[in-house]
Amino acid sequence: MEQYPSQLLADAVDAISSLPGVGRRSALRLALHLLKQPAEHVHHFTDSVARLRDEVRYCRICRMIADGDVCSICADRSRDARTVCVVESVRDVMSIENTGQYHGVYHVLGGIISPISGVGPSDLTIKDLVERVRALEDPASAEVILALPGDVEGETTAFYIYRQIAPSGIRVTALARGLGFGDDLEYADELTLGRSITGRVAFKP
Amino acid sequence: MEQYPSQLLADAVDAISSLPGVGRRSALRLALHLLKQPAEHVHHFTDSVARLRDEVRYCRICRMIADGDVCSICADRSRDARTVCVVESVRDVMSIENTGQYHGVYHVLGGIISPISGVGPSDLTIKDLVERVRALEDPASAEVILALPGDVEGETTAFYIYRQIAPSGIRVTALARGLGFGDDLEYADELTLGRSITGRVAFKP
Repeated sequence: MEQYPSQLLADAVDAISSLPGVGRRSALRLALHLLKQPAEHVHHFTDSVARLRDEVRYCRICRMIADGDVCSICADRSRDARTVCVVESVRDVMSIENTGQYHGVYHVLGGIISPISGVGPSDLTIKDLVERVRALEDPASAEVILALPGDVEGETTAFYIYRQIAPSGIRVTALARGLGFGDDLEYADELTLGRSITGRVAFKP
Repeated sequence: MEQYPSQLLADAVDAISSLPGVGRRSALRLALHLLKQPAEHVHHFTDSVARLRDEVRYCRICRMIADGDVCSICADRSRDARTVCVVESVRDVMSIENTGQYHGVYHVLGGIISPISGVGPSDLTIKDLVERVRALEDPASAEVILALPGDVEGETTAFYIYRQIAPSGIRVTALARGLGFGDDLEYADELTLGRSITGRVAFKP
């Protein structure tokens, strides 16, 4: 255990190293860096972080981070509000938006069903999703895309949501899984390659 | 350039990514992590960082970070106050203290002479060092250890300090440089190996 020359420094290192992926050595380096910055710079840093936590708002429709009551995606009339892409986190929305390939809306669950971590359906926004989807007119022409992780917990969550939504007659789809763009067969893991074969699609020349 | 769903998030990512070694992706990950923490946890984090910057004190003798007017090392009567180890930064003091091999005191320069970065002698605590050393009684039995970086700027700084201190008759030493403990000759760089040869020491069986 390293000795710190002052309690203030020890406290700051403790706090910084509580961030994920930041060890005590990095935390010390960051603390000493901040010590050398102008006070206004450090206050700008701490204020920005505190304000994010204190003033953040979530879209009342899709639970995405928003500047107002409704996020910019839900507020965008040019987006297809009858195609709802269900994701685990805010981060996933940003990843899909970055592709530029999706023009529907989202629903952020805020996590994934995980009995090991003690996360059940009621800890997520699944109830809101179900109500939101049931309220859609002409359900046969609507679609819910389950864009959830490919692991056991993701599949459990997808199945749970599917069972709640399917009775309303809405089309439920999932992300395509298979080899990545440009991947070699030789280097693909067996599960991915297996899914690519069983989930093969019509060849479009 | 990634789009952020809220200005608060964009501001926090900007602030976090201004830290050295933290890219925008890591900053986003940290911001979203902080969003999920209890507000008290986030406030504890930001308060610890702001307090470090606002309330930090430096030892009036050696310029080390301190909780009070004098640091715990300078205040320790069991340490040899006639052996002064000159270092670039607070971090170096911590590194040397961790070896448990040094029982003298320190002097923190707060940087290194670097014309390229616009750092001159007057930006550092060299004047304080010279006054402190000149005030030592019986200079012939005192020692100043120059524990500075082995690069050009470090050597420039060492030489500058040496010229100021040497006239007072104090012994000036520098860190031994050579192969690291357990290093193979085969893998050492030429500069290090060259110094190890020219600076060879008496063999002590």
